[in-house]
Amino acid sequence: MFKLGNFLTLSTFGESHGDAYGGIITNFPAGVEVDFEQIQNELNRRKPGQSTIVTQRKENDEVQFLSGIFEGKTTGTPIGFLIQNTNQKSKDYEHIKNQYRPSHADFTYDQKFGIRDYRGGGKSSARETINWVVAGTLAKQLLPKVEVKAFVSSVGDIFCEKPYQDLDFSLIEKNIVRCPDPTTAEKMIDKIKAIKKEGNTIGGTITCVIKNLPVGIGEPVFGKLQSELAKAMLNINACKGFEYGSGFCGAKMTGKEHNDIFNEDFSTQTNLSGGIQGGISNGMDVYFRVAFKPVATLLQPQESVDKSGRKITLEGKGRHDPCVVPRAVPIVENLANFVLADLFLINNMRKV
Amino acid sequence: MFKLGNFLTLSTFGESHGDAYGGIITNFPAGVEVDFEQIQNELNRRKPGQSTIVTQRKENDEVQFLSGIFEGKTTGTPIGFLIQNTNQKSKDYEHIKNQYRPSHADFTYDQKFGIRDYRGGGKSSARETINWVVAGTLAKQLLPKVEVKAFVSSVGDIFCEKPYQDLDFSLIEKNIVRCPDPTTAEKMIDKIKAIKKEGNTIGGTITCVIKNLPVGIGEPVFGKLQSELAKAMLNINACKGFEYGSGFCGAKMTGKEHNDIFNEDFSTQTNLSGGIQGGISNGMDVYFRVAFKPVATLLQPQESVDKSGRKITLEGKGRHDPCVVPRAVPIVENLANFVLADLFLINNMRKV
Amino acid sequence: MFKLGNFLTLSTFGESHGDAYGGIITNFPAGVEVDFEQIQNELNRRKPGQSTIVTQRKENDEVQFLSGIFEGKTTGTPIGFLIQNTNQKSKDYEHIKNQYRPSHADFTYDQKFGIRDYRGGGKSSARETINWVVAGTLAKQLLPKVEVKAFVSSVGDIFCEKPYQDLDFSLIEKNIVRCPDPTTAEKMIDKIKAIKKEGNTIGGTITCVIKNLPVGIGEPVFGKLQSELAKAMLNINACKGFEYGSGFCGAKMTGKEHNDIFNEDFSTQTNLSGGIQGGISNGMDVYFRVAFKPVATLLQPQESVDKSGRKITLEGKGRHDPCVVPRAVPIVENLANFVLADLFLINNMRKV
Amino acid sequence: MFKLGNFLTLSTFGESHGDAYGGIITNFPAGVEVDFEQIQNELNRRKPGQSTIVTQRKENDEVQFLSGIFEGKTTGTPIGFLIQNTNQKSKDYEHIKNQYRPSHADFTYDQKFGIRDYRGGGKSSARETINWVVAGTLAKQLLPKVEVKAFVSSVGDIFCEKPYQDLDFSLIEKNIVRCPDPTTAEKMIDKIKAIKKEGNTIGGTITCVIKNLPVGIGEPVFGKLQSELAKAMLNINACKGFEYGSGFCGAKMTGKEHNDIFNEDFSTQTNLSGGIQGGISNGMDVYFRVAFKPVATLLQPQESVDKSGRKITLEGKGRHDPCVVPRAVPIVENLANFVLADLFLINNMRKV
Repeated sequence: MFKLGNFLTLSTFGESHGDAYGGIITNFPAGVEVDFEQIQNELNRRKPGQSTIVTQRKENDEVQFLSGIFEGKTTGTPIGFLIQNTNQKSKDYEHIKNQYRPSHADFTYDQKFGIRDYRGGGKSSARETINWVVAGTLAKQLLPKVEVKAFVSSVGDIFCEKPYQDLDFSLIEKNIVRCPDPTTAEKMIDKIKAIKKEGNTIGGTITCVIKNLPVGIGEPVFGKLQSELAKAMLNINACKGFEYGSGFCGAKMTGKEHNDIFNEDFSTQTNLSGGIQGGISNGMDVYFRVAFKPVATLLQPQESVDKSGRKITLEGKGRHDPCVVPRAVPIVENLANFVLADLFLINNMRKV
Repeated sequence: MFKLGNFLTLSTFGESHGDAYGGIITNFPAGVEVDFEQIQNELNRRKPGQSTIVTQRKENDEVQFLSGIFEGKTTGTPIGFLIQNTNQKSKDYEHIKNQYRPSHADFTYDQKFGIRDYRGGGKSSARETINWVVAGTLAKQLLPKVEVKAFVSSVGDIFCEKPYQDLDFSLIEKNIVRCPDPTTAEKMIDKIKAIKKEGNTIGGTITCVIKNLPVGIGEPVFGKLQSELAKAMLNINACKGFEYGSGFCGAKMTGKEHNDIFNEDFSTQTNLSGGIQGGISNGMDVYFRVAFKPVATLLQPQESVDKSGRKITLEGKGRHDPCVVPRAVPIVENLANFVLADLFLINNMRKV
Repeated sequence: MFKLGNFLTLSTFGESHGDAYGGIITNFPAGVEVDFEQIQNELNRRKPGQSTIVTQRKENDEVQFLSGIFEGKTTGTPIGFLIQNTNQKSKDYEHIKNQYRPSHADFTYDQKFGIRDYRGGGKSSARETINWVVAGTLAKQLLPKVEVKAFVSSVGDIFCEKPYQDLDFSLIEKNIVRCPDPTTAEKMIDKIKAIKKEGNTIGGTITCVIKNLPVGIGEPVFGKLQSELAKAMLNINACKGFEYGSGFCGAKMTGKEHNDIFNEDFSTQTNLSGGIQGGISNGMDVYFRVAFKPVATLLQPQESVDKSGRKITLEGKGRHDPCVVPRAVPIVENLANFVLADLFLINNMRKV
Repeated sequence: MFKLGNFLTLSTFGESHGDAYGGIITNFPAGVEVDFEQIQNELNRRKPGQSTIVTQRKENDEVQFLSGIFEGKTTGTPIGFLIQNTNQKSKDYEHIKNQYRPSHADFTYDQKFGIRDYRGGGKSSARETINWVVAGTLAKQLLPKVEVKAFVSSVGDIFCEKPYQDLDFSLIEKNIVRCPDPTTAEKMIDKIKAIKKEGNTIGGTITCVIKNLPVGIGEPVFGKLQSELAKAMLNINACKGFEYGSGFCGAKMTGKEHNDIFNEDFSTQTNLSGGIQGGISNGMDVYFRVAFKPVATLLQPQESVDKSGRKITLEGKGRHDPCVVPRAVPIVENLANFVLADLFLINNMRKV
């Protein structure tokens, strides 16, 4: 219950200012040679302090594998892992103990649990996503041929207008905003810098494209590929929406426009379906888009209330992201990796 | 695995032209007086043949409860239910046995399972949603004070532009398209009729609003309320996207615009958050929007291929919906009902 | 939650005097040709009224498959099935509405749920096992080479003393008590007849032997083969104990006596381990023994209390088994079949 | 899948010579004040090196909680914990890399996974039980009034003959074998010492008694209290059998002897049912017995084979238990604690 995955599963723990984050991956097949460097690289992509447009917090995010790997290979037994929290400044948060920050989870946690680790957002911190990056990168190593690429497709009202097919994905990592269109990337970076200067924040979207996915991934009912992807993405802290294939635009179209006509090799002439039919991958690219709201922590004064309902003024400070999407790119990719690996293993058992 | 819900669960079975649909609901609390009429009403709202803008198939959708209810009350034991398939014309489908219809699941099922009940889409038929309506209406009876209302918010490019707060939900059922704005409803109906005449189909969106939900519903990680809702909605057959609160629009906004400032009673001045903070309901309205693509079955000739990859021309016939959204309204509502009831029960156990 | 199996799962419903029993089997692989006759045969082996030493109730136990099978083959989608209740005489039970029968579940159900279908034991009736026989026989068809044979190894103090290796399993079905040793079988039958004449009942044990099970079935932690078997068996209504291999006798032995020494082909010279090492099958026979208490319903007067705690005398009547073990043989076998098929499918995914 | 518990769950990881053991407990209610000392006490009861009759290995078993507890109280979020492995002498095991020890899991792990951490048994080591003790003791703190007491009821052929009702449980911890009957305890200790001197090992049984359990714990089908207990116990490494209430003895009895007649307060005059009716606790003591085989590692030469099937002679050495039951007492108790807490929480949601 409340884990990622169905057969291949990830259970996690950790709070922003606790001792450590970590997780357990179960049912990972034995005999996979683990590429530890790839995992560390993905953690670095997610890490704060990478560039001028993300938070300047320094976190030394190193994962330690505690079990399930022997002499560099998976053993088929549960894989436990740990990421120490090393740069917490819990004192920073003492003053918000009794404050409810707008559009944060302070109030809802207090109401739900009657107790709350208020330091750095506690359980509601997006630092939890570090666990997902570890597990997703490992999962990716089960599916070496599948290519999962995400990029920033909008920041505020600046959109990357080109269809993904016209973009060169090798450029994604060439700029700090992770948009493969250099001109747009520059505009996005300028936008974020300007927003940051104001002590404000801004939202954005990420587009993710999955190539070389075998046909047959996904389950008919309650396990549709799009449903599993949506479920994963909507767990990302600032995520407000998910669409795949034609998405919300598809809702404006007619069937004649929208239907993807088959070629003789069972590929389709168009791909408004987003590579999925009846919840099952059809061999075309799977692509989807995820919306992220602006970060709620502002570095400017805001009105709010405290625990007893009294009006207060919050003085934003600390080190926060002005825009979450550049760092969310590896999170989206690795959640997708995990979802795919899980459904891939399950699909192996679907016919005799 | 692949069920609806986490504690309160629904497992289902059934194919379009099999003997029956049905399901098992587990962990439904004992002692609830079942309102059978309400369940039948919801089935009727979903039923084909209700109006001139939906499919003219006649299905006599009556649910039979087989267990878990005694003298009108739930007993706490699994609730088994059945809906007989009574109006299948399997002969209608013999000719598509070896055909792959565009944007249907014929090809992917064949590839995944190596075998396929081709009659009426088999397992991929949206008739499966009948199970969800039964289970969702029952689940609703656990939460009598919570009000879940969905309505058609767009058909093609015709949008209901008013914010939901300005709509009178009592008008939803007053027209056949289920849009509470009478003027827009008329335009939508005209649109669907025109599209139908062409033998074409059209997409649309549904907005769903949840009022009076207690604070605390939803779980921090991998069980966020929005994630559970998205997972459920993306299982609906034609669903292409999900957004809640500010949704994709929120991705264009700044933090200053987007943050919901608290009032002294912990309600918020705005509700771009969509009633959820950190995955947990905050007492404000929860609202979300679901996108539906146009129905893939057209009543006009289409190019396609058969099982061996040969080009064929499909001659659409039969009784199909020109637009799925009016009939999807009770499906969206009742999936939401089930998700809420599940998370509600779980929330009861979150503190001592 | 509360289903049989982990990947291949069975969810069930049904009460003794409801309309029907039934279940849903999920994740059954596609492409298996179903032997319906074998399923009916197993239902017949479990059926009341087979012989003079079992209950004389007549139940026409016919299973109807409602989905997941097309043209005789499984399709990989959920398999729904139903067994109608046709011979209920609910009037028989009106008088026990407010009575608590000794060693029945009347009192505990009332306390737990606050409501109880009292007719024929309701949910606590062993008629539930009919679902398991259907699912287990189907599961067996996934593992055609594995042979699961159970037999009655004791009735009261009459034990089948021979080790199972010296028994001819083809004789199990040759007598009505299902003991493959004809001399012992006769004694058991006499014993049951005598007990029945008194209006009394008697307990017994069943031994189950699994041959030709591949190496590797079972999971290291919380999924050990013996644990999954025990879990299944302890769900049978009258089951009081489970032991495998040396069992409780093994607790009296020394390591030198108990260790199974390997042969050069990795078979072992002895098999006190019962074919399982570290929770995983080792290629030797898996065998286990299950204890059943005597049936609680006596056809003689018994003291008890009613719902308000007042002393009453129960007058036993109706058609009940004097000894449960002959009819429990197919239940034990088919639960084992289901457990094995589930773990077998899972094992297919344990290495790349 | 393959976790302990259904709603309250424990997922674990760890191998004997890896860096650490650990686990994640989910759905533990918020607001429980954690008694850390009690947890450490239970770890000490399980620890090697406690007395002359158990292994002399020194392991400094200290648990570190990493999340889910804030200022001494549970927060309702996942509880991650870790126990470092500090005293591994991996060199000790280099020589068994290619050896298959009799009645160990070396062969089955190799076959199942194709790879095996051979050091100290790797994943198959009983050191895994340390995780269960942590989780079980924490779970016990949810049910402060329920008393779960286990004791050694036999070692080899030395049995504690008194019914548990005649034993003084306060004496359990007064001797190193953990049998509350001092005279029998002495004989057991002598037996183990003699066996140890031979380099041999011996089996035994543990009886566990649960007092003050509320009525209603356990679920009707596939979640019976006895089934959940059996499942947990059969996961303990050397466990060969489980019986509750009258157990295997009950299989020799008649219904007239076995039925527990109600008193006017709904207690029963006898308790052969072992406190459970229909899978649900009835307010009487729940009691069960668990059989343990002798430890497979002998400190004397044994015949075996290596990985290629060649005959070898194993020279036992190292520090091993001559008899596992004294140290298994806290394991049995704490598994039971966890099972009870899980079913207790679930039972809270069974009626409106």
